[in-house]
Amino acid sequence: MILRDIRYAVKLTFFRDEKTFGPGVAKLMELVDEKGSMAEACREMGMAYSKAWKIVRRAEADFGFELMSGERGGRNGGRMVLTDEGKDLLSRYRAMERELQNSADGLFKKYFG
Amino acid sequence: MILRDIRYAVKLTFFRDEKTFGPGVAKLMELVDEKGSMAEACREMGMAYSKAWKIVRRAEADFGFELMSGERGGRNGGRMVLTDEGKDLLSRYRAMERELQNSADGLFKKYFG
Repeated sequence: MILRDIRYAVKLTFFRDEKTFGPGVAKLMELVDEKGSMAEACREMGMAYSKAWKIVRRAEADFGFELMSGERGGRNGGRMVLTDEGKDLLSRYRAMERELQNSADGLFKKYFG
Repeated sequence: MILRDIRYAVKLTFFRDEKTFGPGVAKLMELVDEKGSMAEACREMGMAYSKAWKIVRRAEADFGFELMSGERGGRNGGRMVLTDEGKDLLSRYRAMERELQNSADGLFKKYFG
């Protein structure tokens, strides 16, 4: 069976009791790393600041370590940086995602190419 | 980095202009195949009948073939069956998904085990 003009996407999500980490949190972390600010990262993603913290806090609780650190809130908002463990998690997640996408490339050809 | 008590899931989705096929439609097709009825499949999934048809029609338009055939609606609803192409697509999708999950098992051990 050949599928024409069809693309595919692979989404990798981590769970504990519920969904705890996926492309959304990963993207948020990359933006925090780039901008040094949770508020700016949220603006860029169109995500509510309170929601972003809720998601980050849940992941931190489930993983057992902090993803980012810095001053939260305040008049100008403190500078926010990823922790070493946060960076490590993020880069491993992206690497796993990339390898999974490579697998998918081969499998799509096998089944639909 | 070792992640304890964390599970992962891989979601495979097909796109044309927009998302057109994923775990939801696949599950709907399996239920139609099992029950011979779109109405019963929808009830089982808690999905609105009109939404289910919209999703199926979009996928059929994007793929260029029918996924199921039979009498739609009517007093008792006609018997609905998967077309040969629908069955083929579904089994290839599930096979690709399974192999992708196997890749993910190995990759999770590599990066987080």
